[in-house]
Amino acid sequence: MELKQRGKTVLDRKYTINQIQEIVGGILSGDGSIEIKKLLPPKLADENTLALALSEEEIENLTITRAKAAMVPIGVSLDHITTIEVERPRLAMMKLLHLFYEAPDAPTGIHPTAVVHPDAKLGQNVSIGPGAVIGREAQIGDNAKILANVYIGKKTQIGHNCLFYPNVCIGDFVSIGNNVIIHHGASIGADGFSFVTENPSNVEIAKEQGQIEEKQEQKIYKIPSIGSVEIKDDVEIGANATIDRGTIENTIIGKGTKIDNLVMIAHNCNIGEGCLVISQVGIAGSCKVGDRVVLAGQVGLADHINIGSDSIVMAQAGVSKSFPEKSIIMGYPAVPRREFVKQTKNIKSVENLLKEVKILKEELEELKKIRK
Amino acid sequence: MELKQRGKTVLDRKYTINQIQEIVGGILSGDGSIEIKKLLPPKLADENTLALALSEEEIENLTITRAKAAMVPIGVSLDHITTIEVERPRLAMMKLLHLFYEAPDAPTGIHPTAVVHPDAKLGQNVSIGPGAVIGREAQIGDNAKILANVYIGKKTQIGHNCLFYPNVCIGDFVSIGNNVIIHHGASIGADGFSFVTENPSNVEIAKEQGQIEEKQEQKIYKIPSIGSVEIKDDVEIGANATIDRGTIENTIIGKGTKIDNLVMIAHNCNIGEGCLVISQVGIAGSCKVGDRVVLAGQVGLADHINIGSDSIVMAQAGVSKSFPEKSIIMGYPAVPRREFVKQTKNIKSVENLLKEVKILKEELEELKKIRK
Amino acid sequence: MELKQRGKTVLDRKYTINQIQEIVGGILSGDGSIEIKKLLPPKLADENTLALALSEEEIENLTITRAKAAMVPIGVSLDHITTIEVERPRLAMMKLLHLFYEAPDAPTGIHPTAVVHPDAKLGQNVSIGPGAVIGREAQIGDNAKILANVYIGKKTQIGHNCLFYPNVCIGDFVSIGNNVIIHHGASIGADGFSFVTENPSNVEIAKEQGQIEEKQEQKIYKIPSIGSVEIKDDVEIGANATIDRGTIENTIIGKGTKIDNLVMIAHNCNIGEGCLVISQVGIAGSCKVGDRVVLAGQVGLADHINIGSDSIVMAQAGVSKSFPEKSIIMGYPAVPRREFVKQTKNIKSVENLLKEVKILKEELEELKKIRK
Repeated sequence: MELKQRGKTVLDRKYTINQIQEIVGGILSGDGSIEIKKLLPPKLADENTLALALSEEEIENLTITRAKAAMVPIGVSLDHITTIEVERPRLAMMKLLHLFYEAPDAPTGIHPTAVVHPDAKLGQNVSIGPGAVIGREAQIGDNAKILANVYIGKKTQIGHNCLFYPNVCIGDFVSIGNNVIIHHGASIGADGFSFVTENPSNVEIAKEQGQIEEKQEQKIYKIPSIGSVEIKDDVEIGANATIDRGTIENTIIGKGTKIDNLVMIAHNCNIGEGCLVISQVGIAGSCKVGDRVVLAGQVGLADHINIGSDSIVMAQAGVSKSFPEKSIIMGYPAVPRREFVKQTKNIKSVENLLKEVKILKEELEELKKIRK
Repeated sequence: MELKQRGKTVLDRKYTINQIQEIVGGILSGDGSIEIKKLLPPKLADENTLALALSEEEIENLTITRAKAAMVPIGVSLDHITTIEVERPRLAMMKLLHLFYEAPDAPTGIHPTAVVHPDAKLGQNVSIGPGAVIGREAQIGDNAKILANVYIGKKTQIGHNCLFYPNVCIGDFVSIGNNVIIHHGASIGADGFSFVTENPSNVEIAKEQGQIEEKQEQKIYKIPSIGSVEIKDDVEIGANATIDRGTIENTIIGKGTKIDNLVMIAHNCNIGEGCLVISQVGIAGSCKVGDRVVLAGQVGLADHINIGSDSIVMAQAGVSKSFPEKSIIMGYPAVPRREFVKQTKNIKSVENLLKEVKILKEELEELKKIRK
Repeated sequence: MELKQRGKTVLDRKYTINQIQEIVGGILSGDGSIEIKKLLPPKLADENTLALALSEEEIENLTITRAKAAMVPIGVSLDHITTIEVERPRLAMMKLLHLFYEAPDAPTGIHPTAVVHPDAKLGQNVSIGPGAVIGREAQIGDNAKILANVYIGKKTQIGHNCLFYPNVCIGDFVSIGNNVIIHHGASIGADGFSFVTENPSNVEIAKEQGQIEEKQEQKIYKIPSIGSVEIKDDVEIGANATIDRGTIENTIIGKGTKIDNLVMIAHNCNIGEGCLVISQVGIAGSCKVGDRVVLAGQVGLADHINIGSDSIVMAQAGVSKSFPEKSIIMGYPAVPRREFVKQTKNIKSVENLLKEVKILKEELEELKKIRK
């Protein structure tokens, strides 16, 4: 088989610059009747494209673009091309992209290969994709799009307007709000990683005594999770992320919080509202994260830690104790940014210190000699 | 559709406090005939709840609980409420939770949408869920619960009493013991990440010469994996974890070892018995980890490293060399904890050193001046 | 059910040492007519095995092996056993392993439980496994092996000779070249993690002002991804790895690049040719990585970073700025290796500095006293 040319998304949509300006706002200079069908950076743009030039590099590229119109930040004035100047370019871009976004195929109805338990309750206009499995007494709200091979456990409740991409796995007794998006292969409601031994384990001994005393050979018992997971409205969860069920209470993800790919949120965690949890963050058991907290990529939180609202934890930080509201922290073990910057500076100054101390020693020796 | 109130797990089980005490042991003070139907922390408890108050905070909350009975650590004496005092609260809690745990639905039999190869062999009382695929000459032991959309490759052998959650993928020739639990989307037996080039690669040159000499443009050949994975009895593997097959020999996970979500165990690794491998740990190829080792969250082990039995590797440590038995190590590159603590202290002392050296210089200048 | 003995891969293949030598090259000493059926390390080998002894430890084990023939590095001379000495043992091993590798079962044709959209186009000799879903207007090249429960979105194009393991999820509009291998559960083409608020967010304020000024309570808007993902020929992608779609342009993975398990590559990234991206690496949005770059395990790249060709980023490094070609970098924040080594040395020298400064102070006090 001969494969066709690899193309970009090609949609049958077009807008005039006037229409665009109505949607995104901003100041139009030039010809509002130009029709555009695509959005691209200046270099890749053709005559039917609205060139998006949000960075300085891209603005420079407008001198060589084939586009007849461009969206630019406020204050960028160009003669050779029609422009829409916008205050907050990423906000304008967001509105624009919605015009050209094409949602995944999810026809209303239950695919014949899906397996819906007779005691499950489905809302109106629900789409259940091929191979999807809906458990006993599960409830799915209106307009939900449950794509292929998604698994939803028993007694789990899903709100309205949710979108679950293929291979998402949701366990039993989970509660999910409205407008929740979950990407490929994410796991919601697997068992918490919680174990106990008959006698104190190596870790328990090490915590108390600072060292490992004796070989401990004993059975490790699983502590079952009877809590589940509660995900509030407007949450988004990335591909292959994992959110474990709570031991007794639920693990909770607050309203509007966005979780990136491959994030781990352990049992009993309570994550606030409007947080951003970037890729590969790991949050150990029973942590409490406030509202509007940003956890940057690969951050780790030890168990039972509180992070106050409006805090920012910078990438790869290893957080071993709690921090109050509005903290900006980094490093391992994580400290306030100012302290980290000072530490880094101090480490750099050691080289100079070594030289200075050497000179001091020599000078002192000199003085001592003279004394004699 | 109107969604019902979001509830917790509601099970139709009840126990008297006398029954509970028989199961968990400990000292009962108060009314053993009280019936309970739920387990919750004191704050969330109602009259039908056994309040679990294991921490000091929760014990304090018992003054405001609606529960009539509570489980508390030994030595906590309360007048207003019936108590069971226990020696090792987490152990008692484990026993309690088993009373209230409800396993996932997994009816015995093969779901009509499952695809079981005619040459596969299934044990007794096996449950094969919707969309599950069992490969050629695979063997599944008695009482196995293979949930929806699980894939089991050819000639793979699974022991008795295993529980595989939806979307688990197990490759070819894998061997899995008894009582093994594997969570959503875990991958067992994908190919090892192993490649070779015709001539030395940049990495090989850098290792020898300490720098990259010349641009190396050459084809990267895949080294196939003909080993597989062996998972011993009583192992648990977390959601979306990955354990790769060995190059020639098998990758091995020892008896009773527990592996958390999103852990990576590379080809040829040999992990001992009774280990705890916390979330997002990465173990590179051909590592050997002893028995009862704890690898905390986000730890990384470079390839070909040995970690002795009963060692603890603390969170986020980057381990670049081997360590003997009973090591407690941390940092990057990882060092014994004592050394790490000293390093951290030393870094902090630099600021003071800078001041002291400045004063010394001034004083010395002073002395020198006087001499003249 | 009684389970059979747990065995290794047993294939019905045999080769003479002469045949082996023809394939791998090298110098044969001894009996070329010996027939072998297996490859194993010396300790596990029997009479029908070619013992692979590539390391010094394994060469030593040849004194106790039951094998009659061994492959060894050039210059290893042994009397008691037939040997093939090879220049580049891993390269020879690669060729050998191909002789014994057994591919996953993937019979040509569409499994009756697969769901192929009537407008999809399939090449010749394609295998579509049980439960696989092929979207509208998707194109699959010749000889593709699409295993069980794989999902391929609409208008996605897959080249020839691709192999996708079970539960791989590929979104819409993705373009994949020839000879691409993708392992269990990998996600290609989930939405980028990209959001915007009406007014500046905490992170934006912190970047400008160095601290968080006021509680910001505002809706977080999703920026849709209208770009997709382009994966060039000969790429391999590990289990549960995630590669997100671009915002406007495509996220691109260059020819021959190999990506390990649980790697995260965010929206808009452009990864060059022939790179090795080891397990759990996280690459934030809009990064540009050159050709033949090695990113070792758990490395993190902040967004909008460029890494020049032929660079090596060592394990767990946290890279917060761009680096030129042929850089070798490590640490957090990442610096050239030489600098990191010096830093580490300097930190160690602080202890000695503390002692020296103490002595200097004492001596100076002594001198001052004498002066008086």
